[in-house]
Amino acid sequence: MGKPAIEPRILKGFRDYLPQTTIARSEMIDRIKTVFQSFGFVPIDTPALEYADILLGKGSAETDKQLYRFLDNGQRDVALRFDLTVPLARFAAMHIGELGTPFKRYHIAPVWRAEKPQRGRFREFIQCDFDIIGTKSVLADAEIILVIHQTFRELGVNHRIRLNNRRVLNGFLESLGALDKSCAVLRAIDKLEKLGQDVVSTELKSEAHFSPEQTARVFDFLNLSQSASGGVPFFTELRKLLESSRLGLEGITQLERILSILAESGVEPGSCIIDLSIARGLDYYTGSVFETTLIDLPEIGSVCSGGRYDNLASLYTSQELPGVGASVGLDRLLAGLEELGRIPARSSTAEILVAIADPETAPQAIALAQRLRGHGLHVETYAQEAKLGAQLKYADRKNIRCIVIAGKEDLACGRYSIKDMRTGEQVDSVAFDSLVEMLRQHLADRNERD
Amino acid sequence: MGKPAIEPRILKGFRDYLPQTTIARSEMIDRIKTVFQSFGFVPIDTPALEYADILLGKGSAETDKQLYRFLDNGQRDVALRFDLTVPLARFAAMHIGELGTPFKRYHIAPVWRAEKPQRGRFREFIQCDFDIIGTKSVLADAEIILVIHQTFRELGVNHRIRLNNRRVLNGFLESLGALDKSCAVLRAIDKLEKLGQDVVSTELKSEAHFSPEQTARVFDFLNLSQSASGGVPFFTELRKLLESSRLGLEGITQLERILSILAESGVEPGSCIIDLSIARGLDYYTGSVFETTLIDLPEIGSVCSGGRYDNLASLYTSQELPGVGASVGLDRLLAGLEELGRIPARSSTAEILVAIADPETAPQAIALAQRLRGHGLHVETYAQEAKLGAQLKYADRKNIRCIVIAGKEDLACGRYSIKDMRTGEQVDSVAFDSLVEMLRQHLADRNERD
Repeated sequence: MGKPAIEPRILKGFRDYLPQTTIARSEMIDRIKTVFQSFGFVPIDTPALEYADILLGKGSAETDKQLYRFLDNGQRDVALRFDLTVPLARFAAMHIGELGTPFKRYHIAPVWRAEKPQRGRFREFIQCDFDIIGTKSVLADAEIILVIHQTFRELGVNHRIRLNNRRVLNGFLESLGALDKSCAVLRAIDKLEKLGQDVVSTELKSEAHFSPEQTARVFDFLNLSQSASGGVPFFTELRKLLESSRLGLEGITQLERILSILAESGVEPGSCIIDLSIARGLDYYTGSVFETTLIDLPEIGSVCSGGRYDNLASLYTSQELPGVGASVGLDRLLAGLEELGRIPARSSTAEILVAIADPETAPQAIALAQRLRGHGLHVETYAQEAKLGAQLKYADRKNIRCIVIAGKEDLACGRYSIKDMRTGEQVDSVAFDSLVEMLRQHLADRNERD
Repeated sequence: MGKPAIEPRILKGFRDYLPQTTIARSEMIDRIKTVFQSFGFVPIDTPALEYADILLGKGSAETDKQLYRFLDNGQRDVALRFDLTVPLARFAAMHIGELGTPFKRYHIAPVWRAEKPQRGRFREFIQCDFDIIGTKSVLADAEIILVIHQTFRELGVNHRIRLNNRRVLNGFLESLGALDKSCAVLRAIDKLEKLGQDVVSTELKSEAHFSPEQTARVFDFLNLSQSASGGVPFFTELRKLLESSRLGLEGITQLERILSILAESGVEPGSCIIDLSIARGLDYYTGSVFETTLIDLPEIGSVCSGGRYDNLASLYTSQELPGVGASVGLDRLLAGLEELGRIPARSSTAEILVAIADPETAPQAIALAQRLRGHGLHVETYAQEAKLGAQLKYADRKNIRCIVIAGKEDLACGRYSIKDMRTGEQVDSVAFDSLVEMLRQHLADRNERD
């Protein structure tokens, strides 16, 4: 046999998903979707390819450079979407009249960015966005945060949502007489956690031309958040600090209202805290901004971030569409959950193998598997005639622990054997009804141990 | 406010999925996935973009022309996948050693073809493939057909799988002394159902240079299938017809074995029949070939087709990888199920709306919704302060039929009202536990009526 004609390979920055990872990712997504749906969020989908002019200039010069852009066979200038926000804006501009507001949607789909591949960063990845559009009400902000909270509860991980408000940040800058330097200051503040106070200090001086006194006041302000957990003294102090700024006071009222809704809904105080150093780099946020970290794995950074924006789709429609939303960092979260042992490593979707003891009785063994499926069990058969040893090896490799075996006579009189692959224990001569019961019991025991 | 800068629009042949369609599609896919998993099939995923040489020349000159192909930012010649079979071949060549055989995988993902858009045909659509690779055993063929059968049972539609075997077809051509004209004859036969006997007859003459006598024998052979349901007389007759062809006799034995497995597994005789006119155009099929039609909607054509191939990945690996698989035509099937009323039209994922009777008590109303979610109910709140009328209108538009309302005093003493949006009926002063019970009852009644 000659050498294969083409070397099988994949593009740099892309990856194949093998069954174990695909199963884990798919289960995580299913749990997240269930939470979204329990709040009445509805799914939408949009094309992977859009006219390039729809996508260009919506993120930054950086994202423009990272576009997979080309001329299609009809010489149309097209590109693969680089996020799900711009397609949502285009979608809303076209369909919001029909859909009505407030419109709560989620969208879980791949996006493509031709960026430098790094550890944990790929050129194709799935985004998972959820937004409420068409309302300025802070009730929507609270709902988004409740969804985040519920999502992480459902995934079984301790999390901390850190909440801030751009009005508070800008109100503070207003009180400092530095509102015009908002962008530079927010960008500097954003680096506090990663790079530390010295770097921020230097940047405030070089980029915002802050005096040492102004810089000191910035840190006093940010420190205010360190101990904050939404208690009254914190807000009293914050109000005093921003009393000259109507914008800032508005932001404080919004924060308070959100915290009171969360508290009423049973969100533990530690699960959502005010952190005045959360700025979120993106220019379009105008109110709430938030990030979420895993308490047992803070070093992986935020796994769910977002905020409020004043107008989603101004480039495509004259209808004003304010909204608030967030995005779950699926890849990061999956890696984190795996590290925390929250995702069982499964390489099979079936829990039981019905062995084919004899090629002659294959139809009966296959029928037995089918009958067990009728009782809600997930059952494999080995898809070819083979010795029992090969079938057991297959089950072992796929981590299937229950084997049902029946020879010709057993099948004829409806008696079966169950073998536990882990203990090697075998029970013989079990009738069908007991078989179903015993298999269920077996799987329940196993899930408890996992 | 000025005119928007960019006209919101989508590319020809692409489409937005609005919530109602997305919900229906997603539910259908979930049900199909559950069947795949109950047989132990595992999911995989591959990149949307591949090196062009991986994809070129694998389908036909037609698919090559339909590729979305371009140079990426690194001047690599890349293209969007046009199916899931070629990526599976590449994937298997790279990973099969690690995964082992038989390998049963499913893959549900979008593919792209720059073909002429027509009614019901799009340039981006989801494929849903499942295959067993690494085995020549006919047990695998039977399993694929069982999966198809179970899938349509699960979807609640009457279906008919039409099964044939390329060896039987080629055995017949051998007995006719026309095995070298196999391609032309199979292509002609494929048109029988759509275009009728005259067209096939003409084509057999022009493309395969068949004599009138040969053509008559072809129709005799195909007619044999008309009454076929796998009974003994049919196979006896078929064996007599092909007694000179070892290939043909092998094919007959395979068909018989598959039918005996299906019968043993309780597949009703009408659900899977032999149809000797099923040829499937694709050159790479070598054994079983099959199509599936909806009995109540045969005119939409096959909604699940496939077959056995001898070697999946010969271009990428010298390891021989025989297999058998099928593909569900998701878009066609979804349209069919909608037409048959098998998919309830839902534009909401929630069944209950907790109204916010008063902005002041919004936190309590939101908390009530959250508490109901804790009981497994899907509950919305209106995401902004609004009059009750606006909230009811919203619920009506989203087809939400249960409304929970509570004024300030009611909330304080834990008494709630339930309103049925359809009947207008309202029950007041219900305690929380009864509320949960009544809502569950309400939803159960509703689902029964649906």
